[in-house]
Amino acid sequence: MPHFNPLVEKLSPPPVPSVLAWAKSYDGSRGPLIDLSQAVPGYPAHPDMLAWLGEAAASTAYTGYGAIEGEAVLREAYAEHVAGLYGAAITADNIHVTSGCNQAFICTAMAIASAGDTILMTNPYYFNQETTLSMLGINVELVPCDAGHGFLPEVDAIAAALRPGIRALALVSPNNPTGAIYPPELLSRIHQACRTNGTWLILDETYRDFLPDAGAAPHGLLQTEGWQDSFIGLYSFSKSFCIPGHRLGAITAGSALVDQVTKIMDNLQICAPRSAQAAVAKAIPALADWRLGNRAEIATRADALRDVMSRLPQWKLQAIGAYFAYIRHPFPDIDSQFVAEKLAKLAGVVCLPGDYFGEGQENYLRFAFANADADTIRQLEERLAGFNLPGL
Amino acid sequence: MPHFNPLVEKLSPPPVPSVLAWAKSYDGSRGPLIDLSQAVPGYPAHPDMLAWLGEAAASTAYTGYGAIEGEAVLREAYAEHVAGLYGAAITADNIHVTSGCNQAFICTAMAIASAGDTILMTNPYYFNQETTLSMLGINVELVPCDAGHGFLPEVDAIAAALRPGIRALALVSPNNPTGAIYPPELLSRIHQACRTNGTWLILDETYRDFLPDAGAAPHGLLQTEGWQDSFIGLYSFSKSFCIPGHRLGAITAGSALVDQVTKIMDNLQICAPRSAQAAVAKAIPALADWRLGNRAEIATRADALRDVMSRLPQWKLQAIGAYFAYIRHPFPDIDSQFVAEKLAKLAGVVCLPGDYFGEGQENYLRFAFANADADTIRQLEERLAGFNLPGL
Repeated sequence: MPHFNPLVEKLSPPPVPSVLAWAKSYDGSRGPLIDLSQAVPGYPAHPDMLAWLGEAAASTAYTGYGAIEGEAVLREAYAEHVAGLYGAAITADNIHVTSGCNQAFICTAMAIASAGDTILMTNPYYFNQETTLSMLGINVELVPCDAGHGFLPEVDAIAAALRPGIRALALVSPNNPTGAIYPPELLSRIHQACRTNGTWLILDETYRDFLPDAGAAPHGLLQTEGWQDSFIGLYSFSKSFCIPGHRLGAITAGSALVDQVTKIMDNLQICAPRSAQAAVAKAIPALADWRLGNRAEIATRADALRDVMSRLPQWKLQAIGAYFAYIRHPFPDIDSQFVAEKLAKLAGVVCLPGDYFGEGQENYLRFAFANADADTIRQLEERLAGFNLPGL
Repeated sequence: MPHFNPLVEKLSPPPVPSVLAWAKSYDGSRGPLIDLSQAVPGYPAHPDMLAWLGEAAASTAYTGYGAIEGEAVLREAYAEHVAGLYGAAITADNIHVTSGCNQAFICTAMAIASAGDTILMTNPYYFNQETTLSMLGINVELVPCDAGHGFLPEVDAIAAALRPGIRALALVSPNNPTGAIYPPELLSRIHQACRTNGTWLILDETYRDFLPDAGAAPHGLLQTEGWQDSFIGLYSFSKSFCIPGHRLGAITAGSALVDQVTKIMDNLQICAPRSAQAAVAKAIPALADWRLGNRAEIATRADALRDVMSRLPQWKLQAIGAYFAYIRHPFPDIDSQFVAEKLAKLAGVVCLPGDYFGEGQENYLRFAFANADADTIRQLEERLAGFNLPGL
């Protein structure tokens, strides 16, 4: 008798905890651990953010149930932010608050697809999006993104993959794992291809606040006439405000889609945790300059990594973007999981193996470089230059 | 072209917000609103609870990602509590923390069933459990619970419904909506019937801390040899600690089931919000006496409602339990949604219509009596005695 849901049973255990376990076996001999594994900002939340979180959590104002769609103050503050960033007529009705961006993705997927439907993703992909669809029984088809094209998806390949009945194309820009930043024109053309096929474009923009150019809109999709029937944007407050433990994300969509998500969220958890929503609503306008400072800091870290990698000819910086870099390791016949494990245990450098992000990724490693400051990143030179696999 | 998932599109909007909207049209002419709708404790969280919540939320210790299964301190504190209550060998490995009990239910459902499978529930049922299964494409079959049997499920009816392949039976005790408290012997016999059929028994015990007898274990299922392969317990910290806005619940299960839930939770939201977990871990032992006091207070409210109803012969108290009472309204030909709407708008008494909880429930109303203190409950006498439907 099958005791568990086979769709869940066949999923691998969550990858991040196993990688953190490798790190625990590192003996410290090469210096302090350099953790480039999970995407967590390597600097603390702003003191005001912590004060607002504490104040709201201690208040009886947020102990009761809240609106399923999210606190009105947060929906309004975030809508205003999105409207400004994209120059688009976004209001609170277009926003659904979720408990993090993984939840924004699963709510979106459930709102538009059910078991047996098909959603397109890229290869490589963000692994939680793939496992989310798999456990729901939603078929995943993949559009390859190659190193030769900077890991950008090609419109022709997407158009070829867009059969009738494909419910959605799910993209991540700036990309996880590669870091690739999808240009606005490319996103426009992809969106158009999706619309022609009656397919939703889901765009996860968790890392957009770390794009190098603060002034430019990441894309113009929200200015497209009728975007509400074809585009859904996902976002996380975790990275920008350094509060992943408080679990807050958001969906930007047409109000009809928001209404569907509300029904799903009611079943999933009624509402996202409330007190943190009140705190983030204050932080969005108040900490704008602080976030700009972090954006510049992350750019410095990216520069430091480029510099380091330029002196490590055997390790190829294949792509680098707002938060992640995708590195080709120098052991072509060895799969990346083995390389990453040894790198963690022997050299104290923790990163995610490319294998976790799709087929054919065994030569790559994902470095979440934004986690480490520039001085720490510079230490990678010695660690990687001197690294070899046991027995090779 | 179907834009949305039809399984989600066909769900009704979440019921509680529409009921709260009725309440807003009440003009106050019969006195202050008496809100017996959503299950929210009618007294505030303990000041220490608020202080711990504030302290943890303001700390950088909980801003990062946490363990998917839950904070170790909370898993341990809750395991100890469960072990004590049921006299069972429960450890932290048996606990998965979730963001509320609805999430505990959907995680459990996904861990053991997928689209096309069947799960048994009772009629009436807790509506979010039914909509959760429906939106996942899981078939729902119902075992009737009749007024004549105090709304308790009958073992014979369950045994008759347990065909091979039925993945689970989902029960709620103390029941939502009826309030019925399932006796330990009944639960034992039902559990045995489930085991014989290779069917999981899922028991939602969100309201168990309000059972009249604090000393008695609600059931002996966790003492059954091999319970790990056939029983899953669900719980909410929302009601007992008066913190639904902080969204915390828990699953008690065999560690193999916990491992499956971990994979689901990673996709659903990575982990439950962390700072509230730290606070609740402190509160479980520290606020035990406070919770005992609330249990006694709720019992007083139940007595007040029994007393009021005994003087309203046209309104029949059909069942009453730890948190809810199920009331037969005096308009046999009028469906409960209409009655509840008029009761809210004209008499300022807000409750949920039986229709929301299943077919054939049109003569009933659910009173969440625990929301109102005894003085408020006594005011129901005048409100209900004088109530009539317009045009009747």
